[in-house]
Amino acid sequence: MQRAYNKETSKHIGKKVRVEGWVNSVRSHGKIIFIDLRDITGILQLVFIPQNKDAYQIVKDIKPEFVIEAIGIVSERPKNMVNPKEETGQIELPVEELKILSKAETPPIPVGEEGTEEADLDKRMDFRWLDLRKPEKLLIFRVWTELEAAFREFWVNHNYIEIHSPKLMSTSSESGAELFEVRYFNRKAYLAQSPQFYKQMGMAAGFEKVFEVGPVFRAEPSVTSRHATEFTGYDAEFSFIESHQDVIREEEEALVCVLKRIKEKYGQDIEKFFRRKIAVPKTPFPQITMAEAKKILAELKVPSEKEGDLNPEEERKLGEYVYEKHQHEFVFVTEYPASVRAFYHMRMETNPKITKSFDLLWNGLEITTGAQREHRYDILVKQAKEKGLNLESLKHYLDFFKYGCPPHGGFGMGPGRMMMKILNLNNVREVTYVYRGVKRLTP
Amino acid sequence: MQRAYNKETSKHIGKKVRVEGWVNSVRSHGKIIFIDLRDITGILQLVFIPQNKDAYQIVKDIKPEFVIEAIGIVSERPKNMVNPKEETGQIELPVEELKILSKAETPPIPVGEEGTEEADLDKRMDFRWLDLRKPEKLLIFRVWTELEAAFREFWVNHNYIEIHSPKLMSTSSESGAELFEVRYFNRKAYLAQSPQFYKQMGMAAGFEKVFEVGPVFRAEPSVTSRHATEFTGYDAEFSFIESHQDVIREEEEALVCVLKRIKEKYGQDIEKFFRRKIAVPKTPFPQITMAEAKKILAELKVPSEKEGDLNPEEERKLGEYVYEKHQHEFVFVTEYPASVRAFYHMRMETNPKITKSFDLLWNGLEITTGAQREHRYDILVKQAKEKGLNLESLKHYLDFFKYGCPPHGGFGMGPGRMMMKILNLNNVREVTYVYRGVKRLTP
Repeated sequence: MQRAYNKETSKHIGKKVRVEGWVNSVRSHGKIIFIDLRDITGILQLVFIPQNKDAYQIVKDIKPEFVIEAIGIVSERPKNMVNPKEETGQIELPVEELKILSKAETPPIPVGEEGTEEADLDKRMDFRWLDLRKPEKLLIFRVWTELEAAFREFWVNHNYIEIHSPKLMSTSSESGAELFEVRYFNRKAYLAQSPQFYKQMGMAAGFEKVFEVGPVFRAEPSVTSRHATEFTGYDAEFSFIESHQDVIREEEEALVCVLKRIKEKYGQDIEKFFRRKIAVPKTPFPQITMAEAKKILAELKVPSEKEGDLNPEEERKLGEYVYEKHQHEFVFVTEYPASVRAFYHMRMETNPKITKSFDLLWNGLEITTGAQREHRYDILVKQAKEKGLNLESLKHYLDFFKYGCPPHGGFGMGPGRMMMKILNLNNVREVTYVYRGVKRLTP
Repeated sequence: MQRAYNKETSKHIGKKVRVEGWVNSVRSHGKIIFIDLRDITGILQLVFIPQNKDAYQIVKDIKPEFVIEAIGIVSERPKNMVNPKEETGQIELPVEELKILSKAETPPIPVGEEGTEEADLDKRMDFRWLDLRKPEKLLIFRVWTELEAAFREFWVNHNYIEIHSPKLMSTSSESGAELFEVRYFNRKAYLAQSPQFYKQMGMAAGFEKVFEVGPVFRAEPSVTSRHATEFTGYDAEFSFIESHQDVIREEEEALVCVLKRIKEKYGQDIEKFFRRKIAVPKTPFPQITMAEAKKILAELKVPSEKEGDLNPEEERKLGEYVYEKHQHEFVFVTEYPASVRAFYHMRMETNPKITKSFDLLWNGLEITTGAQREHRYDILVKQAKEKGLNLESLKHYLDFFKYGCPPHGGFGMGPGRMMMKILNLNNVREVTYVYRGVKRLTP
């Protein structure tokens, strides 16, 4: 007999079905025993009466979080027992056959149940697989699956080529400070901090448009709600652009596409579980140059920490300002000074101290860094020298630009941070399947 | 003026267009200079005559592999100049405006041009971005992009949840032998050899079906045409199965789906460039138990190296045998002995020395390993002990099975090896964007 999902059983009233899942709760009512069975589609009430001897014998040993299989004929509930709050609240399954597939230790869930006070975050991370059994956690990863499918569809439909670039490198791809070192046979290798070099290699190879989804590694010793030592990155790069404004337009188009799909498919669930209403943003998104941003923040009396860059508090305040002024959740901050940007960002023709780069903030959180890249070998070498970088260790990267390379640009995006903003969650640990930080390498 | 791709220009005869790309070749014919311009869609002939003074002045400096932009009015070629071999062989672009976007060193391509003898593999790997400029290399990554999009569509349509599991681990996920060690702040971490533990965590979390695409790392010191120290893995796992035969059926269905799409979209190009005809396989695929396979190979006088396992030569011969007998390119080899399989593979009820596992061979190359997993905590611990594993270092994994976990199974697949079989290429380096091996960490 094929398995029926809990949600489907209401279509099978009067028919025999086989269901499988977790015991969400067990209740006794006189001699009758009720089990709420949980599967990926929802809850179904199982009923055990003493007359069905074999099943009744087995059910006495069952505790919450056991995994079971049950067979019975789907029935309508007695009128006074209907639960309108549950999708399957009109029906129940009087069980004829019961099998225990897996037992659970008692107490089964050390991470706080629905409705009780949540166990502290660290404990929930220790028992992540139990934490993830809560329906709203499952929703997080359903939404992530949709987010990624939507981005990929955008890229594939726009003729991007997918690349899987190496994570083991002989040198650093960004600043050298946050590198993890790997013992690579008889020498050293480093974990890639971004696929930046290899996206650009694709441009030199004539692939014209590439994207990559993969892990990036940062030996970042600071512990914040936004950082992890390993996280997923979405990266895109494309050729024959005129400036970073082409990159901004492409990202806007992708985001509109993606958020439309998420709103359609999960908008209601997100509102129910996370009290967050998804809005599809209008294009073009607001833009503010770094100089303007600093002026606005000074007027708002937000203390500035660093010239030409924004700290988290400044990002938040700027986000609030933009939302108030434009009713827009997004803002592109442009024209970062060269002093705070990577050597491969292209400079403005009108002012070589300013880069053709941008960050994208969503409700006050940076989710993207992008730029037009410097594709001219001589200028690129000059900019690397200015930053005091070791040209020898960059040789393999710099060589990409020696044999003809078109003007190009792109962006890197953190889907974890996007998920925080989609669901109004304030810690990246909540949206990460299994988190990695300075003090966390398990489970 | 918006850019036109080369292939589109034939739709614009008599109209002014802007094209961009690489100089594939430069030829002089009396005073007229011809350039074959290459972009991602194909070749277009540019024509320069002395009357267009500015462009003519610039074109004299241009060498192969320069990146240029040209503007002109699309014209039909003189009848005697039509090249029927090229898609855009009926038209040409007399250039009015010309701009050099990027220069190339001379000699520009040290990796062997179309039609000349190929430079040796190692040199081509050194200059991978130049090697990839050949149209048939671009096709490899277009096909890979389609392969991955098709697998993902299959999974998403079948309600799988995508996971991104950590690549930094505190312990090994497979055998301990091929682990890369990472300096992780003041302690050691290891690079994941597979997402196996975290796929299974998803089962314990009640996700029911998960998939992951990501890098896997093997500190494998052997240098063969099939191995790399880092490669992309496709992994799927799902719950409430009855045996490994459910996993086999799911993989068959996915493969048929994926190969149908590749045949439809790129079948002709693959035949043209790689002389390989894609066949969509019939289901069910042939199956042979390991015991049967060894018997057949003994009859074929293929020397056996190891009890219960196949070496590459045995795989090849078995593939030939199956193709001859069943006209099928695939064969599932089942019932591997427990001695050669991971501790987490479930054993047969009828014979605990045999696992409920399989490999899938495609034309004599292993592309998949799969199994039903042992989900019962006590038996799993017993099997780990039997293999002499350190239970303490496996604690975080074993704990997944303590709190209720359904029966489940899954498979891991190497898309690089699939690409070798799709294109009839005999080295995984050819289908890898940027290869990593014992002696190769660059570019």
